[in-house]
Amino acid sequence: MEKKTTQNIMSMDLDEIRIMVKKHGINVCIIGIGRIGLPTAITFANSGLPTIGVDINQELVDMINSGNFPLKDEPSYEQLFEEVIKTKKLIATTKIEEAVHNSDVIVLSLPTPMIDKIPDYSALQSVAEKLGNLIKKGSIIIVESTIEPGFVENELIGIIESSGTLKAKIDFGIGVCPENANPGEIFYDFNNRPRLVGGIDEKTTAIILEVYKHVFPVELVEMPDCKTANAVKLTTNVFRDINIAFINELALMFEKLGIDTMKVLDAAKRKYNFQVHYPGSGVGGPCLPINSYQLLNSARHVGVKLSMIESARKINENMSDHVVKLTSSAFKESNNSLQNSDILILGVSYKPNVKDIQLSPAEKIISKLQNLGTNVHIYDPYFSSDTVFGIKVEDNLDDILPKMDATIIVTDHDDFKNIKISSFTKMKNPILIDTRGIIDPSSAKLEKIIFRGLGRGNF
Amino acid sequence: MEKKTTQNIMSMDLDEIRIMVKKHGINVCIIGIGRIGLPTAITFANSGLPTIGVDINQELVDMINSGNFPLKDEPSYEQLFEEVIKTKKLIATTKIEEAVHNSDVIVLSLPTPMIDKIPDYSALQSVAEKLGNLIKKGSIIIVESTIEPGFVENELIGIIESSGTLKAKIDFGIGVCPENANPGEIFYDFNNRPRLVGGIDEKTTAIILEVYKHVFPVELVEMPDCKTANAVKLTTNVFRDINIAFINELALMFEKLGIDTMKVLDAAKRKYNFQVHYPGSGVGGPCLPINSYQLLNSARHVGVKLSMIESARKINENMSDHVVKLTSSAFKESNNSLQNSDILILGVSYKPNVKDIQLSPAEKIISKLQNLGTNVHIYDPYFSSDTVFGIKVEDNLDDILPKMDATIIVTDHDDFKNIKISSFTKMKNPILIDTRGIIDPSSAKLEKIIFRGLGRGNF
Repeated sequence: MEKKTTQNIMSMDLDEIRIMVKKHGINVCIIGIGRIGLPTAITFANSGLPTIGVDINQELVDMINSGNFPLKDEPSYEQLFEEVIKTKKLIATTKIEEAVHNSDVIVLSLPTPMIDKIPDYSALQSVAEKLGNLIKKGSIIIVESTIEPGFVENELIGIIESSGTLKAKIDFGIGVCPENANPGEIFYDFNNRPRLVGGIDEKTTAIILEVYKHVFPVELVEMPDCKTANAVKLTTNVFRDINIAFINELALMFEKLGIDTMKVLDAAKRKYNFQVHYPGSGVGGPCLPINSYQLLNSARHVGVKLSMIESARKINENMSDHVVKLTSSAFKESNNSLQNSDILILGVSYKPNVKDIQLSPAEKIISKLQNLGTNVHIYDPYFSSDTVFGIKVEDNLDDILPKMDATIIVTDHDDFKNIKISSFTKMKNPILIDTRGIIDPSSAKLEKIIFRGLGRGNF
Repeated sequence: MEKKTTQNIMSMDLDEIRIMVKKHGINVCIIGIGRIGLPTAITFANSGLPTIGVDINQELVDMINSGNFPLKDEPSYEQLFEEVIKTKKLIATTKIEEAVHNSDVIVLSLPTPMIDKIPDYSALQSVAEKLGNLIKKGSIIIVESTIEPGFVENELIGIIESSGTLKAKIDFGIGVCPENANPGEIFYDFNNRPRLVGGIDEKTTAIILEVYKHVFPVELVEMPDCKTANAVKLTTNVFRDINIAFINELALMFEKLGIDTMKVLDAAKRKYNFQVHYPGSGVGGPCLPINSYQLLNSARHVGVKLSMIESARKINENMSDHVVKLTSSAFKESNNSLQNSDILILGVSYKPNVKDIQLSPAEKIISKLQNLGTNVHIYDPYFSSDTVFGIKVEDNLDDILPKMDATIIVTDHDDFKNIKISSFTKMKNPILIDTRGIIDPSSAKLEKIIFRGLGRGNF
């Protein structure tokens, strides 16, 4: 464990802090060492700062301390991980007390999920309750979790202050530096994407900037306060949810107008002031849907309506219904009943080329199809032989296709783009539903496959 | 006038057409020579093709034929205009019969306005009715006006066929090449922006491509049909209406959360997959609002709902109410009554640096303020001494400011960015409302101006 420290970095001037950081004399603790928190902890430790990772998951902590890298999806971190564990620059623990008490900088990388479409900040709230008692004078707390604008100012500070005796701005500093990483690309993003830094006062912001400058080789964008930084993070993500919804809604209309949305977008993206987004079976993952509900929650608190975001969520969540509708219509055309049919879901990840099913539209599509009496099978190379949504994932596409009536492409993993269209003719029926625009409708027609493409009205 | 022609270009092969175009042996007629149609006609004529411009406006036709350039906003065309008029490569007429009958290519550049938020295609419809009788065999009709996807296929062709004896695809070709020009930047756009070309069949598309390749030095994007081309045009424009609405709605929330939207956007635009749009007092102009209503009209025809676009229109149209609300609140703060106050509107154009008030939010703001009993004045250098919305436009800002209680910046003309903040202190009150984020709120505060910035919660 790192040296005990009694220093108060808030009482130092910035030059002193800069020197302390360079001498690796600042102790860091990362609370929450999951998907984002562990890469964050590795990055801090690799910069030379003594780093301790805290998690309630004893199994994860043991795995990390014994040098077993838990993030197979982020292989770029494997070697760095081994180094910082071997040199004990990074250690993990479940003991938050000791870790926090010995740290100058406390980074919170805790999950902010939803329950019934309401953001759930209980992990942050319960850690904040502990922090009031545990932090030493002069500590800087940095929230990397994605939170609503105002959550630090109106909630976290109050919890920390009322659970201890320390006062914000005087005895401790608090700020935010929202993580900016895409699952599967965390190493690239941590080393390339600008990061926002905002604190409750200028001093706190300046200290965080000094520390992060040392750790992350990226542009740090100084924000006037915490809430503005969080507003930026949510605005940029929800922008995508909004625009996918816009295109999804157009795609449904273009189907009826006999227009191929993919051809529209291919031409549209040549326009200098248009940014292309693609239609699909829904928007999932650990960020976008939750970020939209976070802004809706903020709006509720101040009594305004965000009708664009409300509409967007509704549209994107209903796309799974449309996928089922396309499937029914294809079965009707083939004079086959959905009841007892065998349907293969191609891809369960919420986005291509990652192993991640958080809020994936596949889940809804599967459950709706099962409610219609179909037997749902899954093929997804990222989950070979795993059990996903209660279904054992197939490990050989060629073996399973001849037993299927229909295939629905839900995720556009790159692997799927190489499947020959003729492979699908091996199905009993054969019916092919493409929700991601990766199949050329005319090639499916040539192979006499009964085809439906989401948003593709013209074939 | 150009040579009488009896040739049938549809019966030629593409090589013959290419040669005819190069030899300037294709006669062109542009119906509608207004803001977009005249630059189009000049461009055709300048390419060497004998061009005749048709308009019902006798005054405009006379002006053009006498060599008086009518588009002061598009000065880049002035010299070209003089050349093609002098050499008689371009002539104007009100006589559609003669013009159409002698033309191989007929370009329609007619307005498609709205009446009560419903697109009004009557100009196109009534010209189409005439075309059935007037076109000679082998003519190619090209619609440049922005229309709904399917309008050519489901409506225009029928009108042309039923008003004469010629059959589409056999006796005449029809296609679209939606204009892609921004008022004020038409020359640049015509010489740089890709254009979409779609025809009712491959031959028609190919002929249009040959002709346009000769006339416009830009990438021509071949579309599978007319409706897809029109869908692209509308999608790219409505994308902007949607995204402005998204930011407008956030701006209203950020005001309540004490967040400065401009600071949010300044940081957000550094993110690689975010495209910035700015909040404001509304979305006007000859394109965006109408394009949104065109897509809504298409949706109505096929019985689908486009809730994103519906919401966007509502939000953007209500922004003028918010401007009035900000104004009232500033008057309240200054303990002054709106009744009988003098308010200066800075900028009436729908966008900066053009002379164009089509669907400008200024109109609604002015009428709402007048209904509240205020005396509204206008300063806009593009309309000096003109009468706009029934108000004589001031021609000297320094003279008028001391007589004003408040100023509302509605349009962010570049000129206005150079006004010193201290100028506004000359007002009686002084109250300043900035709907375009061009004033630094802290500088207004320093000058003791009562300030409201749209979307700017933090000052």
